[in-house]
Amino acid sequence: MIPHLPPPALPGLPVPVSWSEDGEAIDILDQTRLPVEERRLRLESVVAVADAIRTLRVRGAPAIGIAAAMGLALGVKRRAAQLAGSSGEPDGALEEGLGRDLELLRATRPTAVNLAWATERVARALREAEGGGLAARVAAVVREADAIALQDREMCRLIGVHGLEVIPAEGACALTHCNAGALATGGMGTALAPVYTAHARGIPISVFASETRPLLQGARLTAWELARTGIGVTVVTEGMVGALMARGLVGLVLVGADRVAANGDVANKVGTYGLAVLARHHGLPFYVALPRSTFDPAAPSGVHIPIEERDPAEVLGVAWGGAEPSGVGAWNPAFDLTPAHLVTAFISDGGVLRPPFPASIARVLAATPPGPLTPRHGRNP
Amino acid sequence: MIPHLPPPALPGLPVPVSWSEDGEAIDILDQTRLPVEERRLRLESVVAVADAIRTLRVRGAPAIGIAAAMGLALGVKRRAAQLAGSSGEPDGALEEGLGRDLELLRATRPTAVNLAWATERVARALREAEGGGLAARVAAVVREADAIALQDREMCRLIGVHGLEVIPAEGACALTHCNAGALATGGMGTALAPVYTAHARGIPISVFASETRPLLQGARLTAWELARTGIGVTVVTEGMVGALMARGLVGLVLVGADRVAANGDVANKVGTYGLAVLARHHGLPFYVALPRSTFDPAAPSGVHIPIEERDPAEVLGVAWGGAEPSGVGAWNPAFDLTPAHLVTAFISDGGVLRPPFPASIARVLAATPPGPLTPRHGRNP
Repeated sequence: MIPHLPPPALPGLPVPVSWSEDGEAIDILDQTRLPVEERRLRLESVVAVADAIRTLRVRGAPAIGIAAAMGLALGVKRRAAQLAGSSGEPDGALEEGLGRDLELLRATRPTAVNLAWATERVARALREAEGGGLAARVAAVVREADAIALQDREMCRLIGVHGLEVIPAEGACALTHCNAGALATGGMGTALAPVYTAHARGIPISVFASETRPLLQGARLTAWELARTGIGVTVVTEGMVGALMARGLVGLVLVGADRVAANGDVANKVGTYGLAVLARHHGLPFYVALPRSTFDPAAPSGVHIPIEERDPAEVLGVAWGGAEPSGVGAWNPAFDLTPAHLVTAFISDGGVLRPPFPASIARVLAATPPGPLTPRHGRNP
Repeated sequence: MIPHLPPPALPGLPVPVSWSEDGEAIDILDQTRLPVEERRLRLESVVAVADAIRTLRVRGAPAIGIAAAMGLALGVKRRAAQLAGSSGEPDGALEEGLGRDLELLRATRPTAVNLAWATERVARALREAEGGGLAARVAAVVREADAIALQDREMCRLIGVHGLEVIPAEGACALTHCNAGALATGGMGTALAPVYTAHARGIPISVFASETRPLLQGARLTAWELARTGIGVTVVTEGMVGALMARGLVGLVLVGADRVAANGDVANKVGTYGLAVLARHHGLPFYVALPRSTFDPAAPSGVHIPIEERDPAEVLGVAWGGAEPSGVGAWNPAFDLTPAHLVTAFISDGGVLRPPFPASIARVLAATPPGPLTPRHGRNP
């Protein structure tokens, strides 16, 4: 089991998900309270983990995957403790429990593919440890969850290194959307990884963060974590991005992804598509940074990606306050689809992928699978 | 003097600016409190009017023009009362006072041209009534302010009628931005005038209102006034507009304007430019509705239009709440520029103007001047 609150990927960066100090729960940074309050929560059950994911206390496709994997491992651990206290393990009791937990977790947020991918890895680890005794099976799932977290950190590091390829050596001003930084991952982020890496190497880089309504992840989370690490950050509303680009203030666009189809269509936080259209209109490069686990070869194109719709109250809340918005509707899709032809390149832990995308994506997934389904014992990324 | 709270342009619509019941002050609907509270304020001085404009208690280019004109008239009236009580009018005392008031009002918001235009009309009315005695001069400026308000209502009505030309007879779903409705004008609005007119004629029409950060005029004001008049309205964040268009849910875009240059470049609420780029990308028509008083023949192109920048706290306020955003900057331009080539047509009270714009704009301004500089006595629009 990796220790409680491992050292951050870079000094000053938060660790959004870890085991609790006693190893009996999951410890998360409550991202709904940032930046006003830096509060950590102890989640003692899979139900609590599912609730934290649903309410965006933990968010970001990779971080959701890690939280869900640790949640499943926690469930197995608790169930094993109960079984050990009784007459031993009835056939399949751990699997059955894990199956229920898995359904609960997968129902929380349908768009991010990492959740399905990470939970499947933990389920497979349990199956493969069949017949090994309760302690060995618990160890196997905990090891798998830890591997997912550690590998995610390593994937972020590699995204940062590969991403240097798209950052001009003389420096740049990058525009990003939502939060695809340390708060969204087990490491230094996806979209922000090239930013942190460039900054660490002395390349002058600053960031425009689009605020990302309705939940303001850009204004709250991206601004908070960049300011913490001493990188210049300026928040703009989404409506200001066009004016920013027209004035020549943006050099490149860097966003993350929640799921990318085999053809390169991107599901990411709603608003991403508009930025991609504006980037194309202004001749600016539009990069999508992601671990290979975010590619979904099972989705041939964007139309095969489910788009989560959330409560309209999230949209109307600030404007209508206590008033009843009678006669007023709202639409609240959490994600949108950016067609592959608007993407300049994907920055993955397997390298920078350029068009034509079906080919370059297929190549990187074939060369290095999108995340091992067997734990890499003894590996220390 | 037009009466306190004249009947609305259409049943259910608010009247944002009027004389107070006793005629000694200006009565406005405080738009910063909508939709939570419908509160009217009594403004008893030019300083109070300037403050209400600066803080957006009254906003929208035409409504600002009306408030400023009434404010100037109020100032002349008060000064005349003081002079009448003393030894009569010293040469130029009314002009001098009006000059100071005019400077104060013009400094409040630099982008909307209607403010400069309306205040110049009142100033000219005072000059032209020179030598007519205090009472006659007061009557002249009040009459001019009233004419501006009444003409604005008529211009809105004509925009609505001409705008029917761009609304499909079978109905449509229009996207609008910010608030260019009854709350922004002396009548039924500019961008919303074709919507209200179509609705009144039984043409099925519904509206997507982009919420318009940072001050949420779309989510607060447009949603409120459309709901009041029974028109279907759905609020979306600015980042959702791309997804809306990609799904084929928008038929046309209708926005207002704060100032339009001679070549057709449009200054309007920040975010307008992004909508125009998205509309072009999706092959959707993009219409700008405005009274002729919003054209500024003195600005050859958009670069000659000053763009107001407001307090960054307006952008960061909701996200950072009580927290100090240390290390975090924000940019807050209140307007952006949409180049003329992205505009399908202007819907003006002088008709629908199509490209090439320098020509069609010049033609409508020549045929019917952009608002008389002499009051139209006895005219009842």
